[in-house]
Amino acid sequence: MATISEMDKEFKDYLKEINAMREAVTLIQWDLRTKIPKKGVEQRSEVVGYLSQKIHQMQVSDKMKAFIDALKDNTEDEIIQKSVLECLDTYEKNRKIPEDEYREYVMLQSKSEAVWQEARNKADFSLFQPYLEKLVAYNIKFANYWGYKENIYDALLNNYEPGVTVKTLDEVFPKVRKSLSELLQKIQQSSVKPNTDLLTAHFPKQAQEAFSVEILNRMGYDFDAGRLDDTIHPFEITINLNDVRITTRYDEQDFRMAVFGIIHEAGHALYEQNIDKRLEGTPLASGTSMGIHESQSLFWENFLGRNNVFWESHYDVFKKYAPQHFAQVDLHDFYQAVNEVKPSLIRIEADELTYPLHIMIRYELEKALINGEIEVKDLPQLWNEKMVEYLGVEPPTDKEGVLQDIHWAGGDFGYFPSYALGYMYAAQFKDKMSESIQIDEVIKSGDFAPIRKWLTENIHQYGKMKKPLDILKDVTGEGLNPDYLINYLTSKYREIYKL
Amino acid sequence: MATISEMDKEFKDYLKEINAMREAVTLIQWDLRTKIPKKGVEQRSEVVGYLSQKIHQMQVSDKMKAFIDALKDNTEDEIIQKSVLECLDTYEKNRKIPEDEYREYVMLQSKSEAVWQEARNKADFSLFQPYLEKLVAYNIKFANYWGYKENIYDALLNNYEPGVTVKTLDEVFPKVRKSLSELLQKIQQSSVKPNTDLLTAHFPKQAQEAFSVEILNRMGYDFDAGRLDDTIHPFEITINLNDVRITTRYDEQDFRMAVFGIIHEAGHALYEQNIDKRLEGTPLASGTSMGIHESQSLFWENFLGRNNVFWESHYDVFKKYAPQHFAQVDLHDFYQAVNEVKPSLIRIEADELTYPLHIMIRYELEKALINGEIEVKDLPQLWNEKMVEYLGVEPPTDKEGVLQDIHWAGGDFGYFPSYALGYMYAAQFKDKMSESIQIDEVIKSGDFAPIRKWLTENIHQYGKMKKPLDILKDVTGEGLNPDYLINYLTSKYREIYKL
Repeated sequence: MATISEMDKEFKDYLKEINAMREAVTLIQWDLRTKIPKKGVEQRSEVVGYLSQKIHQMQVSDKMKAFIDALKDNTEDEIIQKSVLECLDTYEKNRKIPEDEYREYVMLQSKSEAVWQEARNKADFSLFQPYLEKLVAYNIKFANYWGYKENIYDALLNNYEPGVTVKTLDEVFPKVRKSLSELLQKIQQSSVKPNTDLLTAHFPKQAQEAFSVEILNRMGYDFDAGRLDDTIHPFEITINLNDVRITTRYDEQDFRMAVFGIIHEAGHALYEQNIDKRLEGTPLASGTSMGIHESQSLFWENFLGRNNVFWESHYDVFKKYAPQHFAQVDLHDFYQAVNEVKPSLIRIEADELTYPLHIMIRYELEKALINGEIEVKDLPQLWNEKMVEYLGVEPPTDKEGVLQDIHWAGGDFGYFPSYALGYMYAAQFKDKMSESIQIDEVIKSGDFAPIRKWLTENIHQYGKMKKPLDILKDVTGEGLNPDYLINYLTSKYREIYKL
Repeated sequence: MATISEMDKEFKDYLKEINAMREAVTLIQWDLRTKIPKKGVEQRSEVVGYLSQKIHQMQVSDKMKAFIDALKDNTEDEIIQKSVLECLDTYEKNRKIPEDEYREYVMLQSKSEAVWQEARNKADFSLFQPYLEKLVAYNIKFANYWGYKENIYDALLNNYEPGVTVKTLDEVFPKVRKSLSELLQKIQQSSVKPNTDLLTAHFPKQAQEAFSVEILNRMGYDFDAGRLDDTIHPFEITINLNDVRITTRYDEQDFRMAVFGIIHEAGHALYEQNIDKRLEGTPLASGTSMGIHESQSLFWENFLGRNNVFWESHYDVFKKYAPQHFAQVDLHDFYQAVNEVKPSLIRIEADELTYPLHIMIRYELEKALINGEIEVKDLPQLWNEKMVEYLGVEPPTDKEGVLQDIHWAGGDFGYFPSYALGYMYAAQFKDKMSESIQIDEVIKSGDFAPIRKWLTENIHQYGKMKKPLDILKDVTGEGLNPDYLINYLTSKYREIYKL
């Protein structure tokens, strides 16, 4: 019989094999979204299908089960121990779903995404409705297979933000909503009206990129362990811990898309680049949850990128790259404009204050769907009603309404709350950080290393060695607390809008 | 028991699995040579190792053997039949080498490449010598495992150019050498001295690329099934038949490197893009041999790119992109300069006339090594002696001599002749093509589609369905015949150098 240390070694090798295929698939995904010539896509998709199936097979194999059983309570290596738990979670989640249902679901997902694309283009929800009904039905089924304590939606939430429940969200979200709604109302009554027209001027792509790269270097994004490319839908992707790539999209009439987008994606990338390298090759070598990940991207995008001290100390840097137009734009007007609050229809174009309201609408609707309280066919109307109620705007068609996000088409229910959670976590982290770091001074200095180091020590390095709520507790000493975000937004926008 | 048609299907699926991993590895290789950030390389190399091992295992598995035995004489599908033969060849070649020797050899290869790199940088052959001795010893061993009829070197040659033997090369090469040496002597005595200085002017990378892309479009390189990137060492790579990428290196002081390099690589790429798509997923979906491949790249690079009719009809196109400097450069002087013949030390920088002489030196040395007629330690001296004898130039150090090529460091013995064979094939194909196509007229027209179509019909479409000498015979009606190349070079350079 093999000793535990021999087993440890064999298990690590098995994980490395899974990881090798994961790494290959991830590179293919990056390529599919950035470089591949269009005719090459069809055959490449088959390759992804084949390799993904191999990964799945290894994750649910009897061999995997044998490793888990042998090592779960016996290994003394902490990394292996946590890897076993991670594998066990994946193993159980997958084994609880009958194989034929899983296969049908995977096919449904890819078909649904294509149909959603068409439905969105045509602003015709009825095309998508039958697919969405099936997707919801499968998710209800799966949630029941996986099990839950209080609310069936918790089983789905657990896939993205383990530990967070409907109970928590239903306490926190209404509180946030109430504060933001009040704030929004005051803002709309304010006499301060930022002029965003002054932000639009022809700003060549290469100059936008050069400015962004300068900021990325100050943040500490390591270009020897990453790269920046163009794409349609920006993303961060971790091929391995020393190859963490980001992408962006340039609008030469509006620098905000690329500049804030790059800072956002670099926030994700810093997290991944600074995970302890000893975790490479294990399932622990990634950010611990969608929410914690989003806390990192939003931290940099909003708390740095939309911060007054940042622009006071970096407006000159910006002007070095920006078109002549900005020489005439006053810093104060500029700062106000990049922080304009204006209820709008599209989530990904929302300002930082109204953004959480978009999330809450989605959360409430998907929670109700999974709980069988509403029907898919009623979604467009319910969506529009909530938009009016929460934001005071109404989508002219479903394209700008219920059809705008890809998440449901991909079967991702329980994902949306992560965006708002990340924002709240970020505010909590920032408050804690300010106890040991003079954040404003660091930003002024132009070298953001102390901020990055604090985030690495407290969050990044652990990868999946810690669960999201454990990180939050270890760092801040408390659980999810929306007050920090509310206070941050209130104080920031009071000043901007002279409330 | 499975019927033959069921077996056909299962075999195809098995090949598709192998191909999926091959495709993933190939994309990784493209990325390693073009995009990867440097810190990501180490972990990615492990992934390549793992996936390559999986491919190897599937190629030599008992399951593969069972497919071969069942289908070899039974299948009625021609593609499957040829695939079986291809798999049988790979199976036998690999199975004949004991597993531990193969593993040691793979490790030796990668170690040797690193040592060669260092030896080359330091111009110190003694560092590389012990590795090269081992590589030669392994290749002798493997050649004996594989077997041969007349000369042990044939067993190695067979890996790159099946059907071609030492006997053939020893008939053909001396003849080529004699003619080229005589021609070279006359050229060196000629009063015509092309002035290559007039080719060097600052030519921005983007403009070089734009001109090259225009030529590629005229050649029919399909950018929807490929792309062009920067790299240090240019190459063509087939990820799948609809994703055939090329790369180049730009020298802004000398457009020749990129422009002729791109045409060369596009010649390889056209071959692969035009292989019958029914072969996708089988081991037949690639060029049939190194020699036939090189015939395609050299056809376009030399017979089109360095041709007088091409420059007469495209010098204006060139000048649209080229710097102002060329407005003053006379077409005739330009044409002479891009065809300057000048013996030099480095193979990859050689002109088209002296290039085959570089190949012959390598062929003679490696043939003698594998036959045990010379020793590795004597290589530097033998190399230099031959350089003086064949080309009249002597390398100042081994860096510009025996250490210049990576091939031997990678264990590639028997590869070099392909370069010269490809050149001879190309001349034979061109002669045949001229019977049905007015090549000069096509070039003048600016749309090279008739040439590409001829190559596709006669060569490209078959992939590995035909062996190299069968293609040659089917197209030209004869075997390898150096006269076409000799005649082409003689007539071209007589005119240029007024001999």
